[in-house]
Amino acid sequence: MAEASRISEARRDAVFARWVIFSPARSRRPTDLKSHGPANPSPGPDDGAPKPSCPFCLGRESECAPEIFRVPAPDESLPWRIRVIENLFPALRREAAPPAPEDEEPVGAGECAVRGFGFHDVVIETPHHEVRLWDLDAEGVRDVLLAYARRVQQLAEHPAVKYVQVFKNQGASAGASMAHSHSQMLGTPFVPPSVTSRLNCMKEVFERSGKCSLCAVVSKDILVSETHNFSAFVPFAASYPFEIWIVPRQHSSYFHETDQDKVLDLAGLLKSMLQKLCKQLNDPPFNYMIHSAPFGLSSSCLPYTHWFLQIVPQLSVIGGFEMGSGCHINPVFPEDAAKILREIDSL
Amino acid sequence: MAEASRISEARRDAVFARWVIFSPARSRRPTDLKSHGPANPSPGPDDGAPKPSCPFCLGRESECAPEIFRVPAPDESLPWRIRVIENLFPALRREAAPPAPEDEEPVGAGECAVRGFGFHDVVIETPHHEVRLWDLDAEGVRDVLLAYARRVQQLAEHPAVKYVQVFKNQGASAGASMAHSHSQMLGTPFVPPSVTSRLNCMKEVFERSGKCSLCAVVSKDILVSETHNFSAFVPFAASYPFEIWIVPRQHSSYFHETDQDKVLDLAGLLKSMLQKLCKQLNDPPFNYMIHSAPFGLSSSCLPYTHWFLQIVPQLSVIGGFEMGSGCHINPVFPEDAAKILREIDSL
Ligand SMILES: Nc1ncnc2c1ncn2[C@@H]1O[C@H](COP(=O)(O)OP(=O)(O)O[C@H]2O[C@H](CO)[C@@H](O)[C@H](O)[C@H]2O)[C@@H](O)[C@H]1O
Ligand SMILES: Nc1ncnc2c1ncn2[C@@H]1O[C@H](COP(=O)(O)OP(=O)(O)O[C@H]2O[C@H](CO)[C@@H](O)[C@H](O)[C@H]2O)[C@@H](O)[C@H]1O
Repeated sequence: MAEASRISEARRDAVFARWVIFSPARSRRPTDLKSHGPANPSPGPDDGAPKPSCPFCLGRESECAPEIFRVPAPDESLPWRIRVIENLFPALRREAAPPAPEDEEPVGAGECAVRGFGFHDVVIETPHHEVRLWDLDAEGVRDVLLAYARRVQQLAEHPAVKYVQVFKNQGASAGASMAHSHSQMLGTPFVPPSVTSRLNCMKEVFERSGKCSLCAVVSKDILVSETHNFSAFVPFAASYPFEIWIVPRQHSSYFHETDQDKVLDLAGLLKSMLQKLCKQLNDPPFNYMIHSAPFGLSSSCLPYTHWFLQIVPQLSVIGGFEMGSGCHINPVFPEDAAKILREIDSL
Repeated sequence: MAEASRISEARRDAVFARWVIFSPARSRRPTDLKSHGPANPSPGPDDGAPKPSCPFCLGRESECAPEIFRVPAPDESLPWRIRVIENLFPALRREAAPPAPEDEEPVGAGECAVRGFGFHDVVIETPHHEVRLWDLDAEGVRDVLLAYARRVQQLAEHPAVKYVQVFKNQGASAGASMAHSHSQMLGTPFVPPSVTSRLNCMKEVFERSGKCSLCAVVSKDILVSETHNFSAFVPFAASYPFEIWIVPRQHSSYFHETDQDKVLDLAGLLKSMLQKLCKQLNDPPFNYMIHSAPFGLSSSCLPYTHWFLQIVPQLSVIGGFEMGSGCHINPVFPEDAAKILREIDSL
């Protein structure tokens, strides 16, 4: 990259108000410790047979925690195409009594504890062990996104659920413990910390400028691709190299309220971004997260909340600087990452 | 652990206001992906000889970026015991022009960018390649901490430096690229995001309760060890399993103002905590970070800022839930971790 000689710069974004340090020179530092390469299992040819020990495979439904709903295959050649099931090892439990506000046990000054009530679900994206999300056609990806939306809608109706975090871990270095393509969803009885700080930041920007941070026009420099309804870009202050945000072009607070047509458009764009990352970065482990608004938000907050999907390829390990300061060091300028991603074919 | 059957609980701490989910059941989930075990290089016997390619070893000083200062060996048997040097691949550069307030280039609504000015230094903790920090005697560890303090003091005098993050990466999974025992320090021209949110949280607690979050008494349940001047405990809402905080018992805002005697006390406690982690968790990769106050704080903020040192063994990979929500899932209750750490010998 010619731009690698560019000097360092620090940037703060308008969504999380996080400072990020861009330092292309950092990518040239040596190492005498074993590096952590992409740790995705190489998908072998799909013979359609279930893997001996994978409970997410077709035919092994009985080894899973209870099913919440399934999405049938369009041609009924298979009993299901997507299954939404309970997580067998849930971080939060639906059986626990939901906390009442007066339940928050104050412990020390400012500390508090609540029972571990909540919902922790798994979305099995395909019956086949070797198929990756971006191997599905756009309609297949759309159905996964619609399954998220449908389950989020169900959880939104529970009065004690304040937020649902939808996320996907792909590959061991991205935290995945199961290789079979899946995503997860956690409905929490509190608004998680990053959601609170995101809302605070977007509120401040709105009050100061009258604008939603994510409605402000995206510069061409950082744009990767655009469809009628969505933009995919590398954010101006990306915390991670080759991080991509997919944002609805029309202001919208809740992911799960997106209508079917738009979800198909989103699915096509998501598929193409995952293909680009897979090609450019040699099938990297990655995470994606849907950042939506907490439930029951007052209508005065809606003008500055704007949902988006964040994709983060896992290319490096976080160190003590990031853990301590909350400030990331990114060796790749967003404009450079966007240029590379724009130029690479998605197919 | 008998307590593994305890049910989940969510806790929020009084320092960062972060929610954490405690879920012992999570530690029993299966995996069909390669796990990431501790990736520290096993230290071999120390024959004192420099490793062929390590610029941090004795005799290879010329392969390093410029030295800032060195700490002599007490008996002068060696030319140095500790060296503080410039980082050869700095994330921020001392040669860059420091940003003036009016320099912050507003980009979009709420976004901003500044030149990459700052200081990025490395502390070489020992001349010997195979010696780990906790192999040093308490005086040796004290001198490392005093070297941090001295360098922080120097940087504090630069008007454009707002904060110094002191941190250590040990082992590849903790981000280290160099095996030779060292730590780092980054002086930033902005107050990093986690520092801002820590101060906001501690301020709120102080205004509500009249108490400093870290002066409030530590319950015996989470205490690991105590000296005259410091407490070491597993925080009530620890984000990571076996995370330890070492906190001065007397209210104090700035790490670098700690006096020499107290630093020796701190050194002994730090050494003993690192030994305990090494023994209990089989020499895990870890990070530690010093959380101090930003420079030039108004005196009204001092009553609620209280510095501490956070040690985090790297035992698991972060997934999309944590990245998206900022809420960690910790399979080990702090009381259980503290009990184990209390019981294990540090020697
Ligand atoms: N038979 C069965 N029926 C139903 N569910 C089953 C099952 N067998 C396994 N599961 C569940 O399937 C899930 C698979 O999830 P992932 O592979 O995305 O990562 P995991 O949640 O293990 O942890 C990663 O993601 C979390 C959340 O981000 C991080 O806390 C963690 O550190 C990281 O490794 C697990 O949560 C597991 O409990
Ligand atoms: N000859 C020489 N003279 C002077 N300095 C030299 C040198 N050779 C190498 N260095 C520097 O020594 C440092 C060693 O640091 P660490 O091993 O703690 O991790 P590193 O900073 O590489 O990255 C980890 O920590 C950072 C900060 O947390 C994360 O951004 C990153 O992802 C993670 O891998 C490097 O910063 C390197 O630039």
